[in-house]
Amino acid sequence: SRNIRLAVIPGDGIGTEVVAEGLKVLEAVGAKIDATHYDLGATRYHATGETLSDEVLQELRGYDAILLGAIGDPSVPPGILERDLLLRLRFELDHYVNLRPVKLYPGVETPLADTLPGDIDMLVVREGTESLYAGAGGVLRRGTPHEIATQESLNTAFGVERVVRYAFARAAERPRKKLTLVHKTNVLTYAGDLWQRTVNRVAADFPEVTTDYQHIDAASMFFVNQPERFDVIVTDNLFGDIITDIGAAIAGGIGLAASGNINPERTAPSMFEPVHGSAPDIAGQGKADPTATILSVAMMLDHLGLAEEAARVEQAVADDIVERLTGWTGRTTHEIGDDITARVSGGA
Amino acid sequence: SRNIRLAVIPGDGIGTEVVAEGLKVLEAVGAKIDATHYDLGATRYHATGETLSDEVLQELRGYDAILLGAIGDPSVPPGILERDLLLRLRFELDHYVNLRPVKLYPGVETPLADTLPGDIDMLVVREGTESLYAGAGGVLRRGTPHEIATQESLNTAFGVERVVRYAFARAAERPRKKLTLVHKTNVLTYAGDLWQRTVNRVAADFPEVTTDYQHIDAASMFFVNQPERFDVIVTDNLFGDIITDIGAAIAGGIGLAASGNINPERTAPSMFEPVHGSAPDIAGQGKADPTATILSVAMMLDHLGLAEEAARVEQAVADDIVERLTGWTGRTTHEIGDDITARVSGGA
Ligand SMILES: CC(C)[C@H](C(=O)O)[C@@H](O)C(=O)O
Ligand SMILES: CC(C)[C@H](C(=O)O)[C@@H](O)C(=O)O
Repeated sequence: SRNIRLAVIPGDGIGTEVVAEGLKVLEAVGAKIDATHYDLGATRYHATGETLSDEVLQELRGYDAILLGAIGDPSVPPGILERDLLLRLRFELDHYVNLRPVKLYPGVETPLADTLPGDIDMLVVREGTESLYAGAGGVLRRGTPHEIATQESLNTAFGVERVVRYAFARAAERPRKKLTLVHKTNVLTYAGDLWQRTVNRVAADFPEVTTDYQHIDAASMFFVNQPERFDVIVTDNLFGDIITDIGAAIAGGIGLAASGNINPERTAPSMFEPVHGSAPDIAGQGKADPTATILSVAMMLDHLGLAEEAARVEQAVADDIVERLTGWTGRTTHEIGDDITARVSGGA
Repeated sequence: SRNIRLAVIPGDGIGTEVVAEGLKVLEAVGAKIDATHYDLGATRYHATGETLSDEVLQELRGYDAILLGAIGDPSVPPGILERDLLLRLRFELDHYVNLRPVKLYPGVETPLADTLPGDIDMLVVREGTESLYAGAGGVLRRGTPHEIATQESLNTAFGVERVVRYAFARAAERPRKKLTLVHKTNVLTYAGDLWQRTVNRVAADFPEVTTDYQHIDAASMFFVNQPERFDVIVTDNLFGDIITDIGAAIAGGIGLAASGNINPERTAPSMFEPVHGSAPDIAGQGKADPTATILSVAMMLDHLGLAEEAARVEQAVADDIVERLTGWTGRTTHEIGDDITARVSGGA
């Protein structure tokens, strides 16, 4: 079979550092990959004013997958790179499933007391192409006492149903077969009503899946004091953003949280990235943990049909994490990458 | 001085149970109160279709304060009681400050490992009258594959500035004098820009206060793994809703979380309520913890200028909580209320 064509967007800050380790692991696992780097991000923006041109976007469509590090830098006003580069990719490539596992690996220190690995094992299916992320809104009389600023959440039956169906299908594959809708139906009555009706309707096609509902505020609380309540969660773009960061916190920190921006119909490449940002404060110091990127690589391999390779990478990470129990800390980004690479190659 | 005129809205579910204990404590502390009960909530709604009439609203304006238990019942479609009763009160009475302390009392079991009371001591100033809570939005082609549902976040310079000023003033009173804005400026670019510019501008009037910014997703994570980062937080209505439930979780649970819906200019009565809901699953069983309501009563006393009485109630709660350390659990709603009442009266 032909090589996998991979577009790599290291991005800003620690993005470049963690992506380098992800690629090392990818090579070690023996996947046949042709990788092409794209220097999108803050540096390119400052040099040329470009965030993401139509030409580059068109080129990116031709790949089998995209691996992204992190986008964003304090030197660029908030929103420019996020909206015109990162979110543009998610929207244009129709990544309507933002898949974020929240799993406590044995050996990881969770900030929660009395919590065991089996207590935290969920899959958050965050919608990726709608709601407040549409960018709709405006401002009048900016900078005056009469300023008003609006943001609009746009939600469609089409957009909600497809992600809800995906979430049911994933729930049906798991031992607990439980799907929780997270929203705020008592305040966001129009959008909440659409989500709740959609879940109720699609549920009829998945009689084996138990469904449940939690408001985003209650769900955020339960993530901290009863995480075992959750199996698969389906939620909107904004609520999913928030809840997966809480998920990262309880599962041992943002250094371990992987994600996939998935286009399930494969009409465009899916994109895999750690949940963390570019962390400019620690960039260039070898302090970043590349584990989240390496786990994102595992998700990518799985998506590309390389289940065995994906499992090997995940196992290598799990084994590496258990070692951390013994107090084996203070490794640099490279060292963690090297250690996991060695395990993947069978050398550890 | 004349008696304090208090409107009491016990509401639904455990609301009636916890409010009874709050009133007991209020009597014990010796505050001169004339209390009038209003049976607003699900029962009244089912009996008469009324949520909150203009007449009752007008009457409520005449009180010095309102004590509310909880509103909401599964027998009523989501949003009706919340929007037409609870949120209507907050909006009509211009409760633009929703004040929610997040404080870990000694003796409380937090779900966070290695966390001491001094690590969690913050004040969340949640905006109460704008943003997605405005109820703006709509739906087209409901129930068809072409449905679209929108929700609009409305934000004004007037609304943002007044709550930001309030938050700065509260931060200036505290030892750490630190104010963190929590928003999502990189996605909600119009509203986020208004909030950030407002904080920057008002900061000039409070040179002694240090300011900081966190995205809502990062802030939610830090609540769990670095709560000591925060002193005073100012944030919008929706983000404040979510973050204060995380706050409740880390500070020992929703049974302890108090709140005040404040009208700082006193053009209408402020309203005090526990952060928790009506909890229909445990209603009528004496299982609810009235502590959150009792702490809300303390906030109310403070707001009414009865600082000494407020301090006595808070101290009684703190002392009661320390006793819980010794494994003194399993008390009913009444028993907890009685024990705190006895301490307030000096009998314990
Ligand atoms: C950088 C930002 C736009 C992004 C988001 O909000 O989706 C990030 O927080 C994430 O979760 O991937
Ligand atoms: C009941 C609901 C409308 C309310 C809110 O969202 O404000 C509640 O969650 C709260 O925090 O007081």
